[in-house]
Amino acid sequence: MALISESITSPANPLIKTLRALDRKKTRQETNLFLAEGARLVRQGLEKAWHIDTLIMAKTSLERDHVRALADQAQSAGARLVNVPDRLLSQITRKDNPGAVLASFRQQDKAPEHLSKSGPAIWLGLYKIRDPGNLGTILRTADCAGLAGIVLIETCCDPYSVEAVRASMGAIFDTDFATASFEAFNTWRHCEGLPLIGASLAGTARPDEIAFQDRAVILMGNEQAGLPGEIEAACDTLCRIPMRAGADSLNLAQATALMSYEAWRQQGYPGAAR
Amino acid sequence: MALISESITSPANPLIKTLRALDRKKTRQETNLFLAEGARLVRQGLEKAWHIDTLIMAKTSLERDHVRALADQAQSAGARLVNVPDRLLSQITRKDNPGAVLASFRQQDKAPEHLSKSGPAIWLGLYKIRDPGNLGTILRTADCAGLAGIVLIETCCDPYSVEAVRASMGAIFDTDFATASFEAFNTWRHCEGLPLIGASLAGTARPDEIAFQDRAVILMGNEQAGLPGEIEAACDTLCRIPMRAGADSLNLAQATALMSYEAWRQQGYPGAAR
Repeated sequence: MALISESITSPANPLIKTLRALDRKKTRQETNLFLAEGARLVRQGLEKAWHIDTLIMAKTSLERDHVRALADQAQSAGARLVNVPDRLLSQITRKDNPGAVLASFRQQDKAPEHLSKSGPAIWLGLYKIRDPGNLGTILRTADCAGLAGIVLIETCCDPYSVEAVRASMGAIFDTDFATASFEAFNTWRHCEGLPLIGASLAGTARPDEIAFQDRAVILMGNEQAGLPGEIEAACDTLCRIPMRAGADSLNLAQATALMSYEAWRQQGYPGAAR
Repeated sequence: MALISESITSPANPLIKTLRALDRKKTRQETNLFLAEGARLVRQGLEKAWHIDTLIMAKTSLERDHVRALADQAQSAGARLVNVPDRLLSQITRKDNPGAVLASFRQQDKAPEHLSKSGPAIWLGLYKIRDPGNLGTILRTADCAGLAGIVLIETCCDPYSVEAVRASMGAIFDTDFATASFEAFNTWRHCEGLPLIGASLAGTARPDEIAFQDRAVILMGNEQAGLPGEIEAACDTLCRIPMRAGADSLNLAQATALMSYEAWRQQGYPGAAR
């Protein structure tokens, strides 16, 4: 199939300006788009059937096989195809080596109900977390640990920020997530009959002393403040990850991995690669 | 005690220029110093008796109690005390809100022999790891999981880089680490009678299927390439962390946390806070 892409060379072009502004939450909200950088990430988005808006290719890589294949796939998916000088790609990504391609994808905004799933499954609730690097790493871990989905509770950092998408290493396209108030989240998990297991320094049981059962929600709090008292009170169990006496605290993403993997271990690792 | 600090106001002052250049590995090597930012971190360094070189205080915070206390402690430890306008602190740290203080500390360079320890203990070897954020997070996790020490094997990223120190959240001062060639590392662990347990996609046993015993070294490979074949061949056991079929890969720091905590769990969490 003949691939025809527009050429854009000016940084003042409205499309380039919009893509460049996607590092701001305001622009992401107005456009409902987010950026995926690099061929690997763009391919993952297409394979998972996320809606692609625009594919931007570096002029110097238009003839490369993997870029042509990607352009072909993106065109079939209805994307606008654009080629630009390499320096424009650098300007959009603010990187010296921006790779051969990037794409804008449409955001998906789900309610927790869309994360429901039958059978054995562990969900993750993240309460007011702030660091997009942590969130991206957590998405990546959730994908590896086969979690059923993540609920971002109250005001969290944006999973569609450039930093979160980068840190997710493509898991942004693989891991189901939803946003909700704590009330809506709590109603949903009660309807689903899911016990709520909060990670807290106030917990008395270690992860391996808790029976996660076949279905549960793990709840992790804010990086600085953890879970507030009233949220802890809504949990069925509070779990405390062991720490060496005198040590400070675990990074949130590390703590989340330990909780998630312990729950998965207790289930016998259903869905694990062999 | 009367505290007397020099005033420096010029960004061209040699001390300011050197401190600002400590974000470069070359300057860190030439001076053998590294930067700790913020009162909390500086206090930790002093408490752990690391050698402090200079304490820099923002002029506007000289009268604050915690800054006076820190200056007192630093002076007793032999530090040069300097006060600067807030904008100079921002220039050194390249941060808009640099906090009230920062300090330069002397680096410690240890050989693996200095990490030796009797009784139950788990060590960590990191082979050619590259990302200072990962390394800082791993230091923090090692501190929490009560690891006996970390060996940085061959050429790794610098634990004294600003990014690694920041990500360590003070664990840089708490966690013993050493640098070594693989040969020196391997000789050391053989002398100590430590089994070497490598994390690898080529492993067949899961972490919870491996007997870490009372004493062992966990070996983690490079973020992109993992462990090369000849290093894997030197391991006593290769361990594979379960992943959902189709998932990409775990972040290195996440994988290290899972390995370390599993080893600690098997030992019954000796040294954990109650």
